[in-house]
Amino acid sequence: MDNVKETLRFDYNNMMESYIGKKEGISEKELNSMKLNANEAHAKFKINRGNGMLGWVDLPYNQNLVIKDILLTAKTVRKAEFFVVLGIGGSALGPMALFQALCHIRYNDLKRSKRRGPKFFVEDNIDPERMQSLLDVLDLDRTVFNVVTKSGSTSETMSQFLIISDILKNKYGDDYRNHIIATTDEVNGNLIKIAKAEGFKCFYIPAGVGGRFSVISPVGLFPAAVLGINIKLLLKGCADMDKMCRKNSFESNPALIAATLQILAMKKGKNISVMMPYADSLKLMADWYCQLWGESLGKEKDFSGEKVNVGQTPVKALGVTDQHSQVQLYTEGPFDKVVTFLTVDKYRATVIIPGGFQDFSSISFLSGHTLNELITAEMVATEYALTKNERMNCKISIPYVDEYYVGQLMMFFMLQTAYCGYLLNIDAFNQPGVEEGKNATYALLGRKGYETKATELNSKKSKSNRYIIGK
Amino acid sequence: MDNVKETLRFDYNNMMESYIGKKEGISEKELNSMKLNANEAHAKFKINRGNGMLGWVDLPYNQNLVIKDILLTAKTVRKAEFFVVLGIGGSALGPMALFQALCHIRYNDLKRSKRRGPKFFVEDNIDPERMQSLLDVLDLDRTVFNVVTKSGSTSETMSQFLIISDILKNKYGDDYRNHIIATTDEVNGNLIKIAKAEGFKCFYIPAGVGGRFSVISPVGLFPAAVLGINIKLLLKGCADMDKMCRKNSFESNPALIAATLQILAMKKGKNISVMMPYADSLKLMADWYCQLWGESLGKEKDFSGEKVNVGQTPVKALGVTDQHSQVQLYTEGPFDKVVTFLTVDKYRATVIIPGGFQDFSSISFLSGHTLNELITAEMVATEYALTKNERMNCKISIPYVDEYYVGQLMMFFMLQTAYCGYLLNIDAFNQPGVEEGKNATYALLGRKGYETKATELNSKKSKSNRYIIGK
Repeated sequence: MDNVKETLRFDYNNMMESYIGKKEGISEKELNSMKLNANEAHAKFKINRGNGMLGWVDLPYNQNLVIKDILLTAKTVRKAEFFVVLGIGGSALGPMALFQALCHIRYNDLKRSKRRGPKFFVEDNIDPERMQSLLDVLDLDRTVFNVVTKSGSTSETMSQFLIISDILKNKYGDDYRNHIIATTDEVNGNLIKIAKAEGFKCFYIPAGVGGRFSVISPVGLFPAAVLGINIKLLLKGCADMDKMCRKNSFESNPALIAATLQILAMKKGKNISVMMPYADSLKLMADWYCQLWGESLGKEKDFSGEKVNVGQTPVKALGVTDQHSQVQLYTEGPFDKVVTFLTVDKYRATVIIPGGFQDFSSISFLSGHTLNELITAEMVATEYALTKNERMNCKISIPYVDEYYVGQLMMFFMLQTAYCGYLLNIDAFNQPGVEEGKNATYALLGRKGYETKATELNSKKSKSNRYIIGK
Repeated sequence: MDNVKETLRFDYNNMMESYIGKKEGISEKELNSMKLNANEAHAKFKINRGNGMLGWVDLPYNQNLVIKDILLTAKTVRKAEFFVVLGIGGSALGPMALFQALCHIRYNDLKRSKRRGPKFFVEDNIDPERMQSLLDVLDLDRTVFNVVTKSGSTSETMSQFLIISDILKNKYGDDYRNHIIATTDEVNGNLIKIAKAEGFKCFYIPAGVGGRFSVISPVGLFPAAVLGINIKLLLKGCADMDKMCRKNSFESNPALIAATLQILAMKKGKNISVMMPYADSLKLMADWYCQLWGESLGKEKDFSGEKVNVGQTPVKALGVTDQHSQVQLYTEGPFDKVVTFLTVDKYRATVIIPGGFQDFSSISFLSGHTLNELITAEMVATEYALTKNERMNCKISIPYVDEYYVGQLMMFFMLQTAYCGYLLNIDAFNQPGVEEGKNATYALLGRKGYETKATELNSKKSKSNRYIIGK
């Protein structure tokens, strides 16, 4: 990898009117009219990088000591039979995306001798059936849990922690601490206090790193290291993408152009962003992207306090699978979306389609080709069909899936999101819209201090049975 | 279950202006104005049921012999160690939704003695890395494959079939046939011809049953039976929902009201339909729904040939997980969506959140509650937050997840989709929009007869490097 000169490629031909027509496409003029705004957004980002909630931009550069600690700890934890992340939102989506991209696609089903580490589970919900199911399959003697919450008070994660720590304490007494590793804020919150009192090994999430930007902090890096993923190479990919985007404004900055195009698309009523990888390994990258995009850009108010109610709705799709589910709609339905193909130049395996039934023309043409050729042809064909039907689409390609290019890809998306925030004049790093639900949950569970909210909930208009069918 | 009197409940209070306000909500008047159309759609469906592509409506009633055959075959196949479905689209989504809902949530990770059947894999893509990964984990001696394609010519499924059958033939000679079961059309297509020539055990997909309505045909029923799912009870649930909807028009027909409300929502610019189960077991039900809804209703032309470009874009979300990913957007972003909560009254496990760290108020309030209470409170809280923010939402509830209620649920969605098709005056049972991509794929792979398409592809405007960033 030392001689790598390649980068992620961003291809936006099919966003432009010269490819999908004047009615739906973006003109050169429109794109150029955004140049000033885009360069302004780029400049703002450059000035603010590293500060406030832009701490994540420095993560590719400032974690040398952390990485040493992670690798040392991972070496031991890797010997466990089960490794479980307790976390939700960014604390779960980042590790899962890395796992899916960079481990064997059926990793947990491999024999131990063929795996680089323990079986891996991420418990990112509080469904009691699922928690019970997890407990049914674990061998606790050989299980390590990584509890991850920056605030140290996330109800879902802390509930799981209470359940798991109680079981472990009853079983192992004081030694239970050897089964738990905490990833949280170094100073603030309850988890760090508990962890210190109980003697858990800890990793820290820097103050300027929000959940959806935390994949390249210990949140993502520690689980990745346990699974044998090369985290230094991942960060190298992030750094190289950051440098490329830092240096270049507008025309030659892929994340900035991509951000600008989505803003123009939104102005043209394309309020849905479909992320469609053509690789199973990148399937959960789309899930990770959906949080990043949806939670960062879905905002009621802009910086001036004006109501804007903006935000593309991200949709995850998988090529070719969803050609048999969603592409009918994408091709013929409303002109309300941009499809982003996520492709690889080369797959890490080659599978030949053999002959065998040459009498059937609808099958025999497949023989002698590879699955690689088939999936690539289907991607090109779908791109062609969408374009012919005047549907906005663009393509992000990487040479192949490895740590380096996954690093480039994730940094690309995080930068694009940040630029978009500036272009929309909104705060891409907060999430005020989830407070109402959190507070209502506290009130419903009788938490002290939420009595007023409880009263509010009790006084809400009760439902009419007329609007309920069934019994 | 014999005394079951309960049904699925559809609660649409929060679609109405009396709950979410005049600006976004539906008025009584608007709803009533649709009554005539809705009853017309209901009448059309009633007249056509069983005919044409409405053959699926009869499946709860006309499969007695098929079920006997399925159960007998499943009894043997259940002894295998691995059971793999080769299929894509409806052939995969149906079996996966049933598996996720009605088997242990970590089924494949259970020891053999705790499983009712073989490990289960559905191979619904043609990514070569994934195919290789599957082959890495299977023990072919103890594996049975179920190849599923109605047309018998689906490129993805037939490619997989060619790969797998070649490996098996080389290994087992003529006995390879014992490892393959085919589910396809009884008369048409290549797979049935091959299956008869080779001596595979076969199940048949009736002519009037399209892929996305095939879950209650052998497509879904046979894998379900292998996994120990009670398929008779599933069909009983379907039948009961069908009877309820057949009898009742408008006010008391849940699927008809649900269809009408979505039509009204679309008229008000809610062109996104979020399906959000609050149960991990129903997570893949949302995937199954997304195909049903997207492919059935996403259409360019109506029955009169007029361009309409209709179709809500379905989005899958999972409660509470996606509260930490998508709910910020749903609460504060554009007023362009309807959120459908999918809830259960009772989970099949209860998990208590124990005490332990009582000094921390942000944790201690959780202690003594159950995960069941927490997840339910969060659902109610999210519903409350959306409603307070004038966001259209509705709720489908079932008493708990079992075969009977899953049957009701699936039939509800299929009926709702069919009614919507009539209300939109479109063909909900075809998918003309995927032909272009299929033909382009054939042309790219050099299939005979597609030379004109190949010429068309070759003459398409080549991409400009100016619109590609990266190298």
